[in-house]
Amino acid sequence: MKAIVKETAGPGLRLVDRPVPDYGPGEVLIKVDSASICGTDVHIYDWDRWSSERLHPPLIVGHEFCGTIDSSGLGVKGLAAGDRVTAEMHISCGVCYQCKTGQAHICKDVVIKGVDGDGCFAEYVVMPFANVWKLHASIPDEIGSIHDPLGNAVHTVFSAEVTGCSVGVLGCGPIGCAAVAIARACGATQVLAVDINPYRLDIARRMGADRLIDSREASALQSAVAETTGGKGLDVILEMSGNPDAIRAGLASLRGGGRIALLGLPSKPVEINLSKDVIFKGATVLGINGRKMFETWYRMEALIASKRVDFSPLVTHRLPMSGFERGMELMKSGNSGKVILDPRS
Amino acid sequence: MKAIVKETAGPGLRLVDRPVPDYGPGEVLIKVDSASICGTDVHIYDWDRWSSERLHPPLIVGHEFCGTIDSSGLGVKGLAAGDRVTAEMHISCGVCYQCKTGQAHICKDVVIKGVDGDGCFAEYVVMPFANVWKLHASIPDEIGSIHDPLGNAVHTVFSAEVTGCSVGVLGCGPIGCAAVAIARACGATQVLAVDINPYRLDIARRMGADRLIDSREASALQSAVAETTGGKGLDVILEMSGNPDAIRAGLASLRGGGRIALLGLPSKPVEINLSKDVIFKGATVLGINGRKMFETWYRMEALIASKRVDFSPLVTHRLPMSGFERGMELMKSGNSGKVILDPRS
Amino acid sequence: MKAIVKETAGPGLRLVDRPVPDYGPGEVLIKVDSASICGTDVHIYDWDRWSSERLHPPLIVGHEFCGTIDSSGLGVKGLAAGDRVTAEMHISCGVCYQCKTGQAHICKDVVIKGVDGDGCFAEYVVMPFANVWKLHASIPDEIGSIHDPLGNAVHTVFSAEVTGCSVGVLGCGPIGCAAVAIARACGATQVLAVDINPYRLDIARRMGADRLIDSREASALQSAVAETTGGKGLDVILEMSGNPDAIRAGLASLRGGGRIALLGLPSKPVEINLSKDVIFKGATVLGINGRKMFETWYRMEALIASKRVDFSPLVTHRLPMSGFERGMELMKSGNSGKVILDPRS
Amino acid sequence: MKAIVKETAGPGLRLVDRPVPDYGPGEVLIKVDSASICGTDVHIYDWDRWSSERLHPPLIVGHEFCGTIDSSGLGVKGLAAGDRVTAEMHISCGVCYQCKTGQAHICKDVVIKGVDGDGCFAEYVVMPFANVWKLHASIPDEIGSIHDPLGNAVHTVFSAEVTGCSVGVLGCGPIGCAAVAIARACGATQVLAVDINPYRLDIARRMGADRLIDSREASALQSAVAETTGGKGLDVILEMSGNPDAIRAGLASLRGGGRIALLGLPSKPVEINLSKDVIFKGATVLGINGRKMFETWYRMEALIASKRVDFSPLVTHRLPMSGFERGMELMKSGNSGKVILDPRS
Repeated sequence: MKAIVKETAGPGLRLVDRPVPDYGPGEVLIKVDSASICGTDVHIYDWDRWSSERLHPPLIVGHEFCGTIDSSGLGVKGLAAGDRVTAEMHISCGVCYQCKTGQAHICKDVVIKGVDGDGCFAEYVVMPFANVWKLHASIPDEIGSIHDPLGNAVHTVFSAEVTGCSVGVLGCGPIGCAAVAIARACGATQVLAVDINPYRLDIARRMGADRLIDSREASALQSAVAETTGGKGLDVILEMSGNPDAIRAGLASLRGGGRIALLGLPSKPVEINLSKDVIFKGATVLGINGRKMFETWYRMEALIASKRVDFSPLVTHRLPMSGFERGMELMKSGNSGKVILDPRS
Repeated sequence: MKAIVKETAGPGLRLVDRPVPDYGPGEVLIKVDSASICGTDVHIYDWDRWSSERLHPPLIVGHEFCGTIDSSGLGVKGLAAGDRVTAEMHISCGVCYQCKTGQAHICKDVVIKGVDGDGCFAEYVVMPFANVWKLHASIPDEIGSIHDPLGNAVHTVFSAEVTGCSVGVLGCGPIGCAAVAIARACGATQVLAVDINPYRLDIARRMGADRLIDSREASALQSAVAETTGGKGLDVILEMSGNPDAIRAGLASLRGGGRIALLGLPSKPVEINLSKDVIFKGATVLGINGRKMFETWYRMEALIASKRVDFSPLVTHRLPMSGFERGMELMKSGNSGKVILDPRS
Repeated sequence: MKAIVKETAGPGLRLVDRPVPDYGPGEVLIKVDSASICGTDVHIYDWDRWSSERLHPPLIVGHEFCGTIDSSGLGVKGLAAGDRVTAEMHISCGVCYQCKTGQAHICKDVVIKGVDGDGCFAEYVVMPFANVWKLHASIPDEIGSIHDPLGNAVHTVFSAEVTGCSVGVLGCGPIGCAAVAIARACGATQVLAVDINPYRLDIARRMGADRLIDSREASALQSAVAETTGGKGLDVILEMSGNPDAIRAGLASLRGGGRIALLGLPSKPVEINLSKDVIFKGATVLGINGRKMFETWYRMEALIASKRVDFSPLVTHRLPMSGFERGMELMKSGNSGKVILDPRS
Repeated sequence: MKAIVKETAGPGLRLVDRPVPDYGPGEVLIKVDSASICGTDVHIYDWDRWSSERLHPPLIVGHEFCGTIDSSGLGVKGLAAGDRVTAEMHISCGVCYQCKTGQAHICKDVVIKGVDGDGCFAEYVVMPFANVWKLHASIPDEIGSIHDPLGNAVHTVFSAEVTGCSVGVLGCGPIGCAAVAIARACGATQVLAVDINPYRLDIARRMGADRLIDSREASALQSAVAETTGGKGLDVILEMSGNPDAIRAGLASLRGGGRIALLGLPSKPVEINLSKDVIFKGATVLGINGRKMFETWYRMEALIASKRVDFSPLVTHRLPMSGFERGMELMKSGNSGKVILDPRS
């Protein structure tokens, strides 16, 4: 089969031939119909410091996909050949404290397919059946292939409890834009979308943002918050950028008793005015990682299948798998939403 | 001034002349612009058992209104003559355990204006300033005058946590129909509206119900739930009818781990299969009363002012204050939403 | 091996010889060191209506034990021969909505060992490894063998949130008495223990109850609550009896905004004054079933290993396995706590 | 009357004569029986930057006391001359969003007696009646006079939810030591107390700490956590020191999914590894300020009156009011718990 592979420690990826993988008891073999590039894949392509410390080439990359069950090992329950599926690519250990108490999304010994083991940028991928998620008939393949990042957004929005609240979304990459739509669908009464990139702000607009804020203007967020909330401050911030200035601006714009959910990953420690922006305010700061297994997935399905959210504006480019290098460049330009790869071409 | 008064213990009400009331420190005098009939007013009109035990005539009835501040006593903060307002008519004692811990909506010594003291079916009403709620400029008088029942619905929906959930609303009177719209706006992914009255189900439809269920058909709810949820059961029930059969059917249609919020008041004890429908299921039953002061009010304002909900289909009839008897009959027919009275005519 | 078996549909149990059971992949064979009789076992012994509808003889009964790992099948993680263990005997399906969302304790397709399949009143028992709980070195066998009912109590107390609260425990069987001790250890500031049986009230006293209430006196609970809480009512009720009068008395003694957790199973529907005791009060009713997997188990271990609770007064009788009939009689007399069986004798 | 006064902007305080203050409607005049020095008073005495920016001399300082109602203005409810009382010294505005939604402890326009207006280091103090807290008969004056800092500890412990959890308390000043006792009483199963001062660690020991950690040893906390939790990390950190290194060490020692409550105020921004210590971990950071009005006070009373906690080891020194300068020096030495002043001598 064709597969996009990190062959050796260093920049770049190659499209090569590989044998269709074997599967064992409790596993399924899935034919990949559609895959999607994550920001993490770009880091792996560029071979940044994180990648060089975490990955052990050679391996097949990619961890967002939609596919069809080809065949199943012994002991697989609830899945059959022909089922259209996607998957939770965080393989949790099942025996640590977190896994045994409903917090498998922060399993200490997690193995991520496409990072710690072979991923889905290939014609076939093997998964433990418990990680496979059957797609609702009404959900198109493209949306199925981006359930992983959509799930990040759903997990963030649900953790922050936005219903009836004013919400600022900091960073309008695909996850931020998805969060805009989810927050609206979940009853956020004001959604402010913040970014430096007009292309991304325009996607945020199409996803239902009430107000777009260009954060290249120094006090734009502060002014917008003062105006929107009558000086009270925002009830909730969803931080999707990992940018230290955004995190600080987000904390400063929270109302007393407000909540900030952090999903974006800063690349180094961040200086925070804890006394003023967290303690006196009685604020809550929530670290968010992965997707709750599988609470997040059920909520996501319910939102999509009921048409309460429409994620189609997030998908901006479609390429054959052989065009992955162009996909990486599109992602780096900032002028894209999700880029979908077709492994069949 | 003109006022609708229960003059003596017994059925009926009369429109009579009364002096404009005095006010003291911490109180405001409000000119009533619009008032609205509650089911409770119908009970008082009919002089049912509850009324005869609770009320001490003579008193001015009515507890839903919108008006304009005329003048203020000493010590009033944040209000000025000319402000358009409505009010929380539950006057809590301020010193009991509930009042001192943020639960004033279940104050043990509550005094309800229009029930325990003079109400708002009059040209003027006096209120303690802390109970007065300034209306957002974008909210029309009619909607202002029904904030009390809308608040019941908001309190119920927020207590039951409907986001991303399938929801059944049992009883489509005005509060039930309001709950349909609020649940949708707050991200309920399936809203099933249940009633025996086609007129009311039609209002529920206009408020955004995904599915209408005529509960005169014995197993209609059960079939609809099975179909909608794939046999799983509903995540949430909002019980607005007080009907014992509805309560039992609601409990039976909950999924394991589901929640039922009870707002409708049964007139006598209800037999419940606790083992099967509550304990084995791990269900949660929430008693709901009044409106949280003033968390509920802020959420309600945010939902209305942001246009996430449109309550205008709830108001079906408008009458001069002198037409109150026709208003009572309309309410009793079941073929009405909210009936608004104009005290100026 | 020796085993206590329900051989045919009907009253009674027999101690017979059976082959040591086989085990497969993911399973462990455990040598039983100590077992304990549950009220459910008494129902099975007596062959009540519930038993006759649920059980399919022949099967080995019993679902509370402590033992030692003998050997393991393929794929077992984290357990080794010689480990001292007990087990969660509710085998959840792993694929239903509840199981996939951290609510396996209310799995719709649960299989209970000792009820739906062979149990632990035998020299050996086979368990799926994921249900096996390694015992902390400081916990004695007897306490290990009663983790199942202790877990019911822990789950109930944690669900009801008793810290800093006044608490009434209705029903002082072993689970009720365990709840008394757990509630105290978790910061309940008044624990009222209620029963009709002086023997059981005395165990409750030894477990730390602040006040013992003999519910054979009609208004004893009401008076005690009024006195203890200054008329406010109790913050929390833990209902462990399943008795309809106790449930009603518990609801009536709750303060406005209080919580009642129901674990005791009434044998038929219960008439409840929902308007007065749940809705106007803004009360919360929590159905409790099983033990949270495995949040409850971690909390229980932490409480026992840290010596914050001492459950030893709960164990009142020890018998050889051949004395099981005397054990059943002791349980029925009401004058016992937990009765331990030794399968080695 | 005698009063300790900050007369002019600058270091120092003076014991001077002042008229007994007047009181108006809704206010009470309280004879002070016992007062207590807070760390904030030491800052005011020293006239640090915060003091110089916040205070407007002249004013009477002090905000922790116990006293007896002398007389009451019009409209005071629930209090009578002779009542033994203490008070919540944060006077909230009553009309902001926080005040109207049960979050008066983070009122934006709070006025603190003894900081923004005359305080309690005097023979008499005037308070709005709603802020006055009647003391339970069983609570001694000294403990009554330290309800303000005890309330900080209660609020922190209850916000962090410690029941059944391992807990680290960072900083063993009086609030930290109170938190040790409260956490134990509320079911924390391991309480690690951390400080650099042996005198304070000894108080922590007497308050029930399971383990004392001298944080002058670089990796003492890390080793103790690894050992106590088997490498899992602590469930909860209560940060009472405001020290940036302690905050970072606390975050690093949290388990995945753990909670840290911040009460100690760092004097400048703190650099935090958000990615590693908050986001990947799925941690929750809670800013804590003041005391919940009056939920915290009810919980505190219940814990003290039931003897679940004994705060007497916290009071280490008693002085006449004229000895206040020695009290300030004792506080600065670090070798004291609470220092009580007697205004009658």
